[in-house]
Amino acid sequence: MTCIAMREVAVVAVGYTRVSEHWDKSIKGLFIEASLKALSSAGLSLKDVDGIYVANAFAGYLQRQTNLASIIAEALGLTDTFAVSIDAGGASGGLAVHEAYRDVAHGIRDVVLVCGVEKMSEATSSDVLTAQASVEDQEYFRYTGATLHSLAALIYKTYMKRYGVKQEDVALMSILDHEHASTCQHAQYPFKITLDSIMKSPVLSDPVRVLEVVSPSDGAAAVVLCPHEKAKELGAPHVKIAASQLVRDSFNIVERGDVLAMEALVKAASRAYKEAGVTPSDIDFAEVYDDYSVMGVIAMEKLGFCREGEGVKVLKEGEAKLDGRIPINTFGGLKARGAPIGAVGVYQAVEAYLQLTGEAGANQVKDAEVGLTHGSCCFNSIAVVNIFRRCC
Amino acid sequence: MTCIAMREVAVVAVGYTRVSEHWDKSIKGLFIEASLKALSSAGLSLKDVDGIYVANAFAGYLQRQTNLASIIAEALGLTDTFAVSIDAGGASGGLAVHEAYRDVAHGIRDVVLVCGVEKMSEATSSDVLTAQASVEDQEYFRYTGATLHSLAALIYKTYMKRYGVKQEDVALMSILDHEHASTCQHAQYPFKITLDSIMKSPVLSDPVRVLEVVSPSDGAAAVVLCPHEKAKELGAPHVKIAASQLVRDSFNIVERGDVLAMEALVKAASRAYKEAGVTPSDIDFAEVYDDYSVMGVIAMEKLGFCREGEGVKVLKEGEAKLDGRIPINTFGGLKARGAPIGAVGVYQAVEAYLQLTGEAGANQVKDAEVGLTHGSCCFNSIAVVNIFRRCC
Repeated sequence: MTCIAMREVAVVAVGYTRVSEHWDKSIKGLFIEASLKALSSAGLSLKDVDGIYVANAFAGYLQRQTNLASIIAEALGLTDTFAVSIDAGGASGGLAVHEAYRDVAHGIRDVVLVCGVEKMSEATSSDVLTAQASVEDQEYFRYTGATLHSLAALIYKTYMKRYGVKQEDVALMSILDHEHASTCQHAQYPFKITLDSIMKSPVLSDPVRVLEVVSPSDGAAAVVLCPHEKAKELGAPHVKIAASQLVRDSFNIVERGDVLAMEALVKAASRAYKEAGVTPSDIDFAEVYDDYSVMGVIAMEKLGFCREGEGVKVLKEGEAKLDGRIPINTFGGLKARGAPIGAVGVYQAVEAYLQLTGEAGANQVKDAEVGLTHGSCCFNSIAVVNIFRRCC
Repeated sequence: MTCIAMREVAVVAVGYTRVSEHWDKSIKGLFIEASLKALSSAGLSLKDVDGIYVANAFAGYLQRQTNLASIIAEALGLTDTFAVSIDAGGASGGLAVHEAYRDVAHGIRDVVLVCGVEKMSEATSSDVLTAQASVEDQEYFRYTGATLHSLAALIYKTYMKRYGVKQEDVALMSILDHEHASTCQHAQYPFKITLDSIMKSPVLSDPVRVLEVVSPSDGAAAVVLCPHEKAKELGAPHVKIAASQLVRDSFNIVERGDVLAMEALVKAASRAYKEAGVTPSDIDFAEVYDDYSVMGVIAMEKLGFCREGEGVKVLKEGEAKLDGRIPINTFGGLKARGAPIGAVGVYQAVEAYLQLTGEAGANQVKDAEVGLTHGSCCFNSIAVVNIFRRCC
């Protein structure tokens, strides 16, 4: 009987491409670029890696490429390294970090590379919509004609009615994202937008407008996890993972009792705060999953940064800005940094690392000590909450 | 710092559907049927399950359903249980068992449900070929026109030439499978076939013939893993997992130096024998991955049941039959039990359980104590070798 001690886990390196339309790069090319950047930044080489998690949502359909982790690991030159693909829609990246965290904490593997990669821009709009819908329960939704946009609209209308807020308030989420992205080197849309342009953008499903929704993106982001003790030896800047929690809920939002409940997110947050030994007021910044502007607003509330229905107040009063009480989406979030769906959670982990090591440049949150990332699939049918902490 | 003891792991229950063309059942329906059968057979209920691995290769493309584990877990009524999809082509099932084994051994989870499910018969032939090809590295193969059949033909011809054997010898693998399937209740093709019918069946890619190759199948198989101590408490028949090894190799078989080397399988077998403390002669039966008859013959050799080039001799001399020296594919293997690709490795685990608990009926291998299962993706680009041992 072997005895394994639970270990503290660190993120010791990050690498990433800009989120963009990478017409000249394959899914492998993006993966290799992000992964090699990450490894070299910590002075690690390929032979140090003893596990790979590849987060991806759509390659099986869009690129007709299943079995991605093994194929992509070989592209990196690693033919005899444990490699597993993680497919959970927008929660894939956060879940991949969760899996790697478990492996390192339990002494199963020492140096684990987590890379999220997605390539959506080469597909037709119709194929992208099919891919995006594939994460929902097909028998309840797609086969019956319900689209993601229409479900978001249902949530959006319910939210506005219950709390007596206007679309002009909710749309501030999108403005915030673009403001933060305007100084972010890796953002897909590094420019500010106005409320006027949002309100004049086409309606996708009343009241959801184009400029409140993510666009197809390409990109890859990588983080390297290892035991904290090893990170100290390596001497590279590193941060600790203080908590990682994954919770699920019904995919059919109308079966949830209350479409605004987001129970999985509430539970994941509560468990993560407990695991990390912190409260919402200890969080110095958060990267939330705002595939729709209203989902970002609701996330702030469910994560405990304000009371129910007061998310728009946080936005109005500037509390979510980089110098505010609780900076949100410090590099632009899904709307403006961009949303290569399967990779989003790893981009968020990268951003948490940049903030907590003081490498966030113009987007730095001053004295950030604890950061939170939120991954979601299908309106928090799956919610992942990871908490990162500064070292030293 | 918490200290976790490594635990012995048991398979405490199995459930499965017949492999067939299930026109009247959805992928969820198959999953639920197999999973509930497994749980109830051990007196377990849904609330006992604290982790689910869903092995599947093609739903993302064939059913436009990604994110399968979460959706399928909800169909089972489990909305707040850890659930992850495992996608690694024909190695998916074996890899899912590997993941669950790790979780239980390391004390991460106690009762883990592993279910492999695939539904291929509702798709067009063209879509099935696209799905099957999706597990290969698209940039090297599909985009250049190489098909799985043509790669199998290359291996087949090289094998015949190197060892001076005839197709009539290799095709005995298919005859063996059908002989064992003829008494198997869950087999897709429960009848014997003749050499003559094989040699008269159409050529897919010279020399590979239709009756030497798997067909599209539907089916679901489930196993429940838990600590050995808990299995004893439950009192249900159970077997131990003695080893679980996963190794990868280059997907591009012409980059392997020797297309017959199957290095990943050789390594996985050697590591699994070492982990279980056994040698090939201790193995009482083996379920090998014979998606093509020649691959089954080669697997017997690489697993050490005979010398290189002597696989056909094992077949000719009847050593692979149920009462032979080393019974192979005791329920019909991929060719005749059927091959719902992502579920194959779980069917193999089910079959190992049936043999080692004495529940194999007409297909029982007498006094079986140690059984081996072999999962493969793309000609052992990924090879999984799991070893099971009888308890008491």
